[in-house]
Amino acid sequence: MIQSVAFIGLGAMGYRMASHLPRHFDTVYVWNRSFEKAKQHATEYGTQAVELSQAVQADIIFSCLPTSADVAQLVENLELKPGTIWVDCTSGVPDLARQLVTQLKNQGVDYLDAPVSGQTIGADNATLTVMVGGDFTAFERAYPAMQAFGKLIKHVGESGAGFAVKAVNNMLLAVNLWSVAEGFTTLKAHGVNLGEALDCINASSGKSGVTETIFPQRVLNRSFPVTFALPLLAKDAGIALDLVHAAKLPAPLIALTQSLIQAANQTAEENSDFSAAVKMYESWSKITLE
Amino acid sequence: MIQSVAFIGLGAMGYRMASHLPRHFDTVYVWNRSFEKAKQHATEYGTQAVELSQAVQADIIFSCLPTSADVAQLVENLELKPGTIWVDCTSGVPDLARQLVTQLKNQGVDYLDAPVSGQTIGADNATLTVMVGGDFTAFERAYPAMQAFGKLIKHVGESGAGFAVKAVNNMLLAVNLWSVAEGFTTLKAHGVNLGEALDCINASSGKSGVTETIFPQRVLNRSFPVTFALPLLAKDAGIALDLVHAAKLPAPLIALTQSLIQAANQTAEENSDFSAAVKMYESWSKITLE
Amino acid sequence: MIQSVAFIGLGAMGYRMASHLPRHFDTVYVWNRSFEKAKQHATEYGTQAVELSQAVQADIIFSCLPTSADVAQLVENLELKPGTIWVDCTSGVPDLARQLVTQLKNQGVDYLDAPVSGQTIGADNATLTVMVGGDFTAFERAYPAMQAFGKLIKHVGESGAGFAVKAVNNMLLAVNLWSVAEGFTTLKAHGVNLGEALDCINASSGKSGVTETIFPQRVLNRSFPVTFALPLLAKDAGIALDLVHAAKLPAPLIALTQSLIQAANQTAEENSDFSAAVKMYESWSKITLE
Amino acid sequence: MIQSVAFIGLGAMGYRMASHLPRHFDTVYVWNRSFEKAKQHATEYGTQAVELSQAVQADIIFSCLPTSADVAQLVENLELKPGTIWVDCTSGVPDLARQLVTQLKNQGVDYLDAPVSGQTIGADNATLTVMVGGDFTAFERAYPAMQAFGKLIKHVGESGAGFAVKAVNNMLLAVNLWSVAEGFTTLKAHGVNLGEALDCINASSGKSGVTETIFPQRVLNRSFPVTFALPLLAKDAGIALDLVHAAKLPAPLIALTQSLIQAANQTAEENSDFSAAVKMYESWSKITLE
Repeated sequence: MIQSVAFIGLGAMGYRMASHLPRHFDTVYVWNRSFEKAKQHATEYGTQAVELSQAVQADIIFSCLPTSADVAQLVENLELKPGTIWVDCTSGVPDLARQLVTQLKNQGVDYLDAPVSGQTIGADNATLTVMVGGDFTAFERAYPAMQAFGKLIKHVGESGAGFAVKAVNNMLLAVNLWSVAEGFTTLKAHGVNLGEALDCINASSGKSGVTETIFPQRVLNRSFPVTFALPLLAKDAGIALDLVHAAKLPAPLIALTQSLIQAANQTAEENSDFSAAVKMYESWSKITLE
Repeated sequence: MIQSVAFIGLGAMGYRMASHLPRHFDTVYVWNRSFEKAKQHATEYGTQAVELSQAVQADIIFSCLPTSADVAQLVENLELKPGTIWVDCTSGVPDLARQLVTQLKNQGVDYLDAPVSGQTIGADNATLTVMVGGDFTAFERAYPAMQAFGKLIKHVGESGAGFAVKAVNNMLLAVNLWSVAEGFTTLKAHGVNLGEALDCINASSGKSGVTETIFPQRVLNRSFPVTFALPLLAKDAGIALDLVHAAKLPAPLIALTQSLIQAANQTAEENSDFSAAVKMYESWSKITLE
Repeated sequence: MIQSVAFIGLGAMGYRMASHLPRHFDTVYVWNRSFEKAKQHATEYGTQAVELSQAVQADIIFSCLPTSADVAQLVENLELKPGTIWVDCTSGVPDLARQLVTQLKNQGVDYLDAPVSGQTIGADNATLTVMVGGDFTAFERAYPAMQAFGKLIKHVGESGAGFAVKAVNNMLLAVNLWSVAEGFTTLKAHGVNLGEALDCINASSGKSGVTETIFPQRVLNRSFPVTFALPLLAKDAGIALDLVHAAKLPAPLIALTQSLIQAANQTAEENSDFSAAVKMYESWSKITLE
Repeated sequence: MIQSVAFIGLGAMGYRMASHLPRHFDTVYVWNRSFEKAKQHATEYGTQAVELSQAVQADIIFSCLPTSADVAQLVENLELKPGTIWVDCTSGVPDLARQLVTQLKNQGVDYLDAPVSGQTIGADNATLTVMVGGDFTAFERAYPAMQAFGKLIKHVGESGAGFAVKAVNNMLLAVNLWSVAEGFTTLKAHGVNLGEALDCINASSGKSGVTETIFPQRVLNRSFPVTFALPLLAKDAGIALDLVHAAKLPAPLIALTQSLIQAANQTAEENSDFSAAVKMYESWSKITLE
């Protein structure tokens, strides 16, 4: 029976994810490097902003940080209590997941890689998808806690599998984003009505999350709202490519897309949304996607 | 007021599309190069199998042939009556659409490029998407006839625009097919449960028509049902790339995908479904997607 | 026996190529759209600057214009005398070569596509390579005239073959330029001494014209002298890709390189040398090749 | 003053490289896993086939093994004498070079990564290029020994730099091999005479080691002599790509080529020369390069 939970890392996603916890658990600790944010969260949602050393005494510890390296650094000097489950919702690196499993096992703690998808709106509505790698018993024990913010919660394999699925998902997002940019630029160059074309494709075999939501809601209306930063997509694309190479696989489309996204990230304005990767392509074509 | 319609080309799609016409129109002519098929259609659906010269006396002529070149060849020696609208549902070439417009205008006939998507199941259920290029008044006049088999019917631009949208749609299908093959092969190499991964991605930003239907219904179950032949996808990918070049655009992902699909087509078994393009990738990775 | 020759198009290459003709032929006509240049050439080299209509009365007519379209336009209204050979040194389009052959045959004139390589220094020294397509007898008759500026003069096939070889050569140049940029950027990122690395590679299997001359003489010394304009390389890369598609071949590396060169051309400063294509890559890597 | 040298690894390259050592040094030990080969070498060239433990007592130890991992495994259990220099001519991994430096420094031994290029003919003629990374003083001390088989011997940077240059060289070889295959297939499809085209390109800006030697001597004559195995080129291409990723660089051409070479290796016959990678492309194009 889970009595207490903690949420570490109150960024755009974590802040929202943690907001649902008080409805399900008596004790909810929150912690954030910029501690003001933790205090604000406590005020807003009735959580408890506490020292990190206290937070990690919870039965379930959630973390949601920018990178796996941030999690590893945090874990380094912590003393945890045996029986705890650390559920890491970071979009992280499979190899580091396996390292953390080994490291935390020494303290009797289970580690699950449990990245989420669904963006800020999914975090608001507690309808996130959670893709979980690691020990199956730990997964089952942590399941009720993940239900606080997740709708589809899947055990996809051993440690690192969750991170792998997330990385591949985001790589496919990148492939779709760039290829739709190429395709729609081509259509625009030929005088096609992009709005009508989008409707047709969304009812056809070429549709994707990008044609259904990203293009209409972010690109074609030129809003590019910064809800998922381009450097993070570039990082995830890199993780996906590392998986490809670790398995010694050829993967021409993934490899090319990773290069393009990395280049787009290098040439983008500060603080760009991932969808703004199309702007590098626009600089090549001299055609604006609107 | 449309009194009579004709349907030319009773292949996998055309046969089904024409089956709905008798419910809407008094006179429905059908014609097919292998004429037995036309007679079979007449028997089955109450259409009239007639000579081509008679069929083309209908108010609206639909055609659905393998390529634009087939349509052009057919049109060459026909005498049409002024006021007819030719609605060409072939997945064709934009440049040829414009040629046919000019050619048919001499006989007082309007030509619309009106390719469809939705595959055989959409043709069965009359829920096809129809993407139409050409004269807007002709589009409006032909609209009721297209409703016999179409659900979403859109005017996407001038002549050739319909073909362009279809070609780009199918190119995106090809991009998605190949990139999902790369991504899922990578996941399998890392021991991830593909079924669960698919569920997660289908609830996430990387989803596409390929992850939602093609992969579960054709690839992962190893069925590869031949409903849309690989050579036709290769042809459509070539049309899309031609559009890219005609507009003098760089398009690295589209160009690479076209090469891969063309190579997959060259090395595939006879009579392969488009989804069997993944088999070339499987020969590279030595991993079967199942 | 060749009595008179003409040279049409006195650009960077043509001006130098025509300078050798007076040493070999009694009558040498020159013509240039900006006629001042023709007069300057006459003064400098003892050629005769004449009206176009007179120039084309020569036994052998050389042309060297920016594009095949320029040649076609020029030819349109000319009256030529039967027995003339038109030797087109433009880096042109194979299809247009075949059109010009047909067109000029009506006037009893042979047309050879005869693009050159060797850059301005080769034109200065009369050591150009001439790759010739077209009728073999015409090739043999024009051979002595081409020797005025060419060292290696080869009949590579039927009409268009010369243009095809030139386009493929320039595409390989583009592939080499970009891949060497990627490779040397990688070496620099790892602290390798680029000059020593270049020496090693130039004695090894990975060497190319780019490692031997272009990189040391244009890129690493940051000179980028404008002797072969980037838009012309982009044009030639496009011709090469058109050949690929006309033959319905997959060609992933050529296709990708064409996209990259086209993008580099679109984003380059005005009046860039082809070697400055690497600057787009530098904007991606944030590493300068020096 | 170097008194004794050893050569470990008598493969196609090592066997020939070691053959020159007796002309320069009084004591030359050789060792090979299949010891018969060492004895054969001793008989043929007057070297001494000895136990590994004795061989490594030489002043300079050369090694030339298939992979860095083989070298690392060998070094693990050896006792070396301080002051020795280990000159590793393997085409290896930069990261492992740095590991070996650290490991051998504990025994007072210097390690240089010193891969060679020039193939078996260069090994026969002692005209190899040696690209060396590591301590400069050690480089200078080992220089005379490397002169026994090397002609151009360059210090290209710190530890790992030699391996990096070799990997990039071989990656450029792979890029050139594949792109020339695409280009010449295109020319053949258009009826161009490949031999004449090769002569033209070899006198032009698109030339490379591949057009100058690999294509005429291995591909177009269909000999594909197995002097450098395709799996080794695939391995080197992988090392190059790892360098790209370690530096977080985009590199679309390198990434694509690595995928193609890896796929070619996966689908090749056993015991293929690297040049046989073109056969995968031939299976796509249905055109034989001859």
